[in-house]
Amino acid sequence: MNTIGRLFRVSVLGESHGECVGALIDGVPAGLELKVEDFKTDMERRQGGRSKGTTPRKEADIPIIKSGVFNDKTTGAPLLLLFENANVRSSDYEELKNTPRPGHADLVGTKKFGNNNDYRGGGHFSGRLTAALVAAGVVAKKILKKSKIDTNAQIIEVGGTKEIERAIDEALSEGDSIGGIVECKVKGIPIGIGEPFFDSVESVISHAVFAIPAIKGIEFGSGFGAARMKGSNHNDEILDLEGKTRTNNAGGINGGITNGNELVFRIAVKPTSSIKKTKTTIDLRSGKMVDISVKGRHDACIALRVPVVLEAVTAVAILDLMIIEQKTGRIIE
Amino acid sequence: MNTIGRLFRVSVLGESHGECVGALIDGVPAGLELKVEDFKTDMERRQGGRSKGTTPRKEADIPIIKSGVFNDKTTGAPLLLLFENANVRSSDYEELKNTPRPGHADLVGTKKFGNNNDYRGGGHFSGRLTAALVAAGVVAKKILKKSKIDTNAQIIEVGGTKEIERAIDEALSEGDSIGGIVECKVKGIPIGIGEPFFDSVESVISHAVFAIPAIKGIEFGSGFGAARMKGSNHNDEILDLEGKTRTNNAGGINGGITNGNELVFRIAVKPTSSIKKTKTTIDLRSGKMVDISVKGRHDACIALRVPVVLEAVTAVAILDLMIIEQKTGRIIE
Amino acid sequence: MNTIGRLFRVSVLGESHGECVGALIDGVPAGLELKVEDFKTDMERRQGGRSKGTTPRKEADIPIIKSGVFNDKTTGAPLLLLFENANVRSSDYEELKNTPRPGHADLVGTKKFGNNNDYRGGGHFSGRLTAALVAAGVVAKKILKKSKIDTNAQIIEVGGTKEIERAIDEALSEGDSIGGIVECKVKGIPIGIGEPFFDSVESVISHAVFAIPAIKGIEFGSGFGAARMKGSNHNDEILDLEGKTRTNNAGGINGGITNGNELVFRIAVKPTSSIKKTKTTIDLRSGKMVDISVKGRHDACIALRVPVVLEAVTAVAILDLMIIEQKTGRIIE
Amino acid sequence: MNTIGRLFRVSVLGESHGECVGALIDGVPAGLELKVEDFKTDMERRQGGRSKGTTPRKEADIPIIKSGVFNDKTTGAPLLLLFENANVRSSDYEELKNTPRPGHADLVGTKKFGNNNDYRGGGHFSGRLTAALVAAGVVAKKILKKSKIDTNAQIIEVGGTKEIERAIDEALSEGDSIGGIVECKVKGIPIGIGEPFFDSVESVISHAVFAIPAIKGIEFGSGFGAARMKGSNHNDEILDLEGKTRTNNAGGINGGITNGNELVFRIAVKPTSSIKKTKTTIDLRSGKMVDISVKGRHDACIALRVPVVLEAVTAVAILDLMIIEQKTGRIIE
Repeated sequence: MNTIGRLFRVSVLGESHGECVGALIDGVPAGLELKVEDFKTDMERRQGGRSKGTTPRKEADIPIIKSGVFNDKTTGAPLLLLFENANVRSSDYEELKNTPRPGHADLVGTKKFGNNNDYRGGGHFSGRLTAALVAAGVVAKKILKKSKIDTNAQIIEVGGTKEIERAIDEALSEGDSIGGIVECKVKGIPIGIGEPFFDSVESVISHAVFAIPAIKGIEFGSGFGAARMKGSNHNDEILDLEGKTRTNNAGGINGGITNGNELVFRIAVKPTSSIKKTKTTIDLRSGKMVDISVKGRHDACIALRVPVVLEAVTAVAILDLMIIEQKTGRIIE
Repeated sequence: MNTIGRLFRVSVLGESHGECVGALIDGVPAGLELKVEDFKTDMERRQGGRSKGTTPRKEADIPIIKSGVFNDKTTGAPLLLLFENANVRSSDYEELKNTPRPGHADLVGTKKFGNNNDYRGGGHFSGRLTAALVAAGVVAKKILKKSKIDTNAQIIEVGGTKEIERAIDEALSEGDSIGGIVECKVKGIPIGIGEPFFDSVESVISHAVFAIPAIKGIEFGSGFGAARMKGSNHNDEILDLEGKTRTNNAGGINGGITNGNELVFRIAVKPTSSIKKTKTTIDLRSGKMVDISVKGRHDACIALRVPVVLEAVTAVAILDLMIIEQKTGRIIE
Repeated sequence: MNTIGRLFRVSVLGESHGECVGALIDGVPAGLELKVEDFKTDMERRQGGRSKGTTPRKEADIPIIKSGVFNDKTTGAPLLLLFENANVRSSDYEELKNTPRPGHADLVGTKKFGNNNDYRGGGHFSGRLTAALVAAGVVAKKILKKSKIDTNAQIIEVGGTKEIERAIDEALSEGDSIGGIVECKVKGIPIGIGEPFFDSVESVISHAVFAIPAIKGIEFGSGFGAARMKGSNHNDEILDLEGKTRTNNAGGINGGITNGNELVFRIAVKPTSSIKKTKTTIDLRSGKMVDISVKGRHDACIALRVPVVLEAVTAVAILDLMIIEQKTGRIIE
Repeated sequence: MNTIGRLFRVSVLGESHGECVGALIDGVPAGLELKVEDFKTDMERRQGGRSKGTTPRKEADIPIIKSGVFNDKTTGAPLLLLFENANVRSSDYEELKNTPRPGHADLVGTKKFGNNNDYRGGGHFSGRLTAALVAAGVVAKKILKKSKIDTNAQIIEVGGTKEIERAIDEALSEGDSIGGIVECKVKGIPIGIGEPFFDSVESVISHAVFAIPAIKGIEFGSGFGAARMKGSNHNDEILDLEGKTRTNNAGGINGGITNGNELVFRIAVKPTSSIKKTKTTIDLRSGKMVDISVKGRHDACIALRVPVVLEAVTAVAILDLMIIEQKTGRIIE
């Protein structure tokens, strides 16, 4: 179940405090130039320790290409990208073993997998796995670029305000965290991508997006605003034979299929669950309620690190649809 | 691509103005009592012509059970549910062949499938296909009921107001349409359902939900509101060993997995695209812009008919996860 | 599980003595001319009552096209092909309910699905379902013909002899049945189809072939004979840049991928399980052993009817690989 | 396409002369004790250099467990097993780059993936990848053992004789290679596993089996012999309510579903394609025919190494069906 895609297929693996995290990508078109340097920019965008409000933990976040590349080009065989975990402090988490952190997957992990669950730093549920998503996204974006498709996400709101820095300073000073909204735009996507009903573009993208931890909602084009609109305002008038519309309430999609306009959607990111402020949880040994305060290195606003992850899963989702529609070939020229 | 699910799998088929629409369901546990009467209530809820703001078109919306049932019980073989199309007025649509309706899939259908696309009433893209979704949902809900899981959706807002009837009257009087918000709650779902990452409960449900035409957004628990919250308010405190929480900002899900609380999410429905009011579109023959006003029988507020469809796709999605988790067996006792 | 294929996907449904059997086909390229007449030849080849050794049961085996076709062309939407069951004598089977027929799926059906299993004439396990396979094959073969790919199967041996008619006469005279071998050749398939390892051409074809009831084995090229050969004889010498080889021990496949030569494989078909001769089985009520003799209309040599079914599943399998390799487009010109 | 399975899913990766080969396994039940020592016996069985007729190449064939295990137990998260490639002599293959070896995938690899194909030692097509299959099989077999299911394969014939050693000596002395037949028996498999039609036990097993390089055929129970039999001899008489039969021509399967008897099937293995004896091939530069003799370390009879690989893919296939049938749980006690 840790796999997404029909023809371009990404599997994630690994644990926060295990040996590694990584992505196995199958269905990569052959002939794409790929070097470890290609990952540098996006991995840095994802990495904490750079802007205020993100964790100072610093991994050497450049993947090792373990398979699928020969003479710096993809071969068409499965591509394994691994990040070895260095800089791991398991002791931070040992004491939390029996007191599941509110907002985290600690309790559900134990319920689902029994005492076998790797609880250290969230284990396989950790946000650390987004490194694998970003790496897969680098590959997908590089391929999409050959078709002149460009995926761009940015944070547009934090804590309900556009004054992002101020909102983060406030949260930091309170030992608290804060949520945000990220918008993603995809330019250059051809008309006719996506399938009616269960593989609608919205279905496929939202499926991928909710693999990112901490996402609470997604809306396309006019989104929740559409619920307050009338049809006469909402319907996008069609201007030419290529499907160009006057407005873009559809967000670039009609009937689940791209309509030749820019693809636009937004996601809601919840505040980081790990906070210093004290909350109540249950002690799994005694069954009694206890106070908990999560120590360690954490982001005040995880939304700041989400844009590059959102671009990644979006690119993965769209590339799969492009290959299905035969707009991307099996060999890249 | 017209199929969803891993073990409980629903495929939809048919066209608005063809012979039929229907659902083929594979992986149905054997031994479920099933008669055509079971479909009556939900098919009526979906059907227009009852409340103000819904189309007066009236189909005899009871499916024929073509396979998979023997002696009024499911056999474990594929279940084919067909709705024969009666009461079809194709002439309404003939003139629209060359003038794609704004907000509809007419243009993308032609671009994707060429002149082979069945343009009559939206063809395979039609909202008529939701009859198939509802029928599949009846089966899924009946099975979930054996596990005491109950799925309930209702409209909570139309045109930005809770005064639903007034908002619809206004839209009707203007020859216009209006959007709305539908909320879905699932009670009784056990803890531990769903899979990390790509088969998170949110991924699987949103994938299914965006198969419903006219949906523009989805949010779980606190949803877009989470983007404006702080972690200290958002984190749900855990009260007991069964995962019961004081608040339910998580909407019943942590780390993509059900956490033992009620599952809660909301969706945004756009205003019906077919309206009498005049809009501009392109004439596919001349390439020139022309005015268009959609005649025929249409809903002023399609959101009114969405709740039962939303329950259906939600039940289908959850049942599949329940079977994967082995909480629902292959034979129903 | 009643579905095969990644992009060209065929699902089968129905029961021998229920309302119908049929095939739902998704991923059909748009623009293929398709009329009911197209099915006539292959449905007749499959039908019994024509040559000695096949059952005299005569269905009106022309499918109804229920969806996916508009103006005699496929639309790209799911194609539902249904055969209504006429001419059904359920009483033949009623008495067999508690005495599972040796060689049939009666007992395993009951064990797997409980008393819900439709036991009449094999129910969903019936050879009657091969009508659905053949119908799907007609569609696949028509599409492959556009790429000049031709699939041809014929019976080459019955009861260990090439004197087919004599062997059948003998079995008939004894109230017995007899097995056979069918060979399939595919001409015109391009080099490079199939995927390494789990989607090897052999994997995909054999997966499809063993969906046909009564098949006991499959071998490609030199097949079981290869086990007795030396490498110096087995290796096919390569003659030109298109991969043409001097011999064809490979059967047209290397490393799971078509090599530019004719695809050749053979299958073993067991003798019809339904025979007049008395055999022992268990009475499910008493748990005691009883004698059984299967009455009704049956084939003395089911292998005679297999070639067209084998062509069908082979064409379905190959077409899916052709679409994945982008050698067949989403719209047929 | 390098993945098999619905719920227990195995992906293979890597190249013969790249950094590594490996298997990513998803859907592993949590709680299985797993250490690197568990792989020792089967990896040695697969390894060459022990019996006459197998290559002297010796890898340190113990996988590294990169993820999915915590405190020596599986966690339910994806399990990555990697074999680092040591002892690689790429220069052996450099000269073969332009002269595709008869019987190998060299030419089809180039045709399918262009010049990006990793030609060194077969690259991703290499038999080296069977190390990944065997490793996955170790995990599957360990889980099946909890249900008292035992998978056992052995070579029963080489070069058409049961005098295995003599046949190999002869081939070795001639610089030639030789084929063989391997039989697999599965004891303890419950009745009712497998699905009608496309997920028949034969379909699922043969799909997996043909992922093994060099396999030319598969037959279940009476196999190709069934084609020469009469129904009165072939039908297995049923002796008790658990489905026990007097004979086992069915090979343990009726209607695609296990019938409570031992599962039995055989496969044909072709002679090793790499031989010292001279054969003709095409030079990709000149387009002219040239002689080729494959140097390096190779098996005279690859069939000798196949049994453990056959057990592996069989166990993987059966475990998946066991999980789907809910006979194996998500947590191992």
